Amino acid sequence: MDDNCIFCKIVAGQIPCHKLYEDGRVLAFLDVGPLSPGHTLVIPKHHAVTLDDLPDEDAAAIGAALPKLVKAVKSATGTQACNVLQNNGEIAGQVVMHVHFHIIPKPAADAQADAGAAGTGLGIGWPAGKLDDATAGELVKKITVALD
Amino acid sequence: MDDNCIFCKIVAGQIPCHKLYEDGRVLAFLDVGPLSPGHTLVIPKHHAVTLDDLPDEDAAAIGAALPKLVKAVKSATGTQACNVLQNNGEIAGQVVMHVHFHIIPKPAADAQADAGAAGTGLGIGWPAGKLDDATAGELVKKITVALD
Repeated sequence: MDDNCIFCKIVAGQIPCHKLYEDGRVLAFLDVGPLSPGHTLVIPKHHAVTLDDLPDEDAAAIGAALPKLVKAVKSATGTQACNVLQNNGEIAGQVVMHVHFHIIPKPAADAQADAGAAGTGLGIGWPAGKLDDATAGELVKKITVALD
Repeated sequence: MDDNCIFCKIVAGQIPCHKLYEDGRVLAFLDVGPLSPGHTLVIPKHHAVTLDDLPDEDAAAIGAALPKLVKAVKSATGTQACNVLQNNGEIAGQVVMHVHFHIIPKPAADAQADAGAAGTGLGIGWPAGKLDDATAGELVKKITVALD
């Protein structure tokens, strides 16, 4: 536990949350600044700032919790689509420095219009490039070396 | 396996990929339309269209694979930040109808400028609202019932 971390305080019960799910390694609760109704946060109880610092067991537990939470959020909100997002680092949009996965329902267009800006869910910008074989070969070499 | 699924064909070796990682349940390879250098896809070998349809064991295996892949991608590309994104449903931006997690490095601003639009990583729109207690109470009730 990090004494200055708001999510650690939520895990410890020192700060309240709208709890949805809990097991030995994982806690899920409603985001208080939702992008759409049902916006949920799924966090490890173990404190890690970014995903690459999370132990395998905690990461596996989050992985296993996500499908059932996505299913329940979709069912409860009547939303068919959703985005799962996890940001690492301030420049990538991370605000609370404790690993968290967002489950963000994406309402249908008519429901978005009814709910206003805050009901539109995650906005996505996708400036795709094209991968050439030479660049790919270099990246594969570097990343597989880094994996070992 | 779904015979019409491009990711199932990649898993089966019928379509090539720039492979980064493989275990019994998980495959990771470079996205051919990268948002930034090192943009990686992490998929279950099991065919499921959306995350809520993925069996727990496969979801746990992906969860466990993500931290080491994030670490390797960050290290190999020299990027400190990244977004992990998984889209469910066309309206949420899902294009290939087989579960996949994107690992998208978020280069520092100067590196983004050097690389042009396709080097900027994921663009995020965040139309946050505010959760009131009455709405939260209703959602908690509905979602926890749906979880059971």
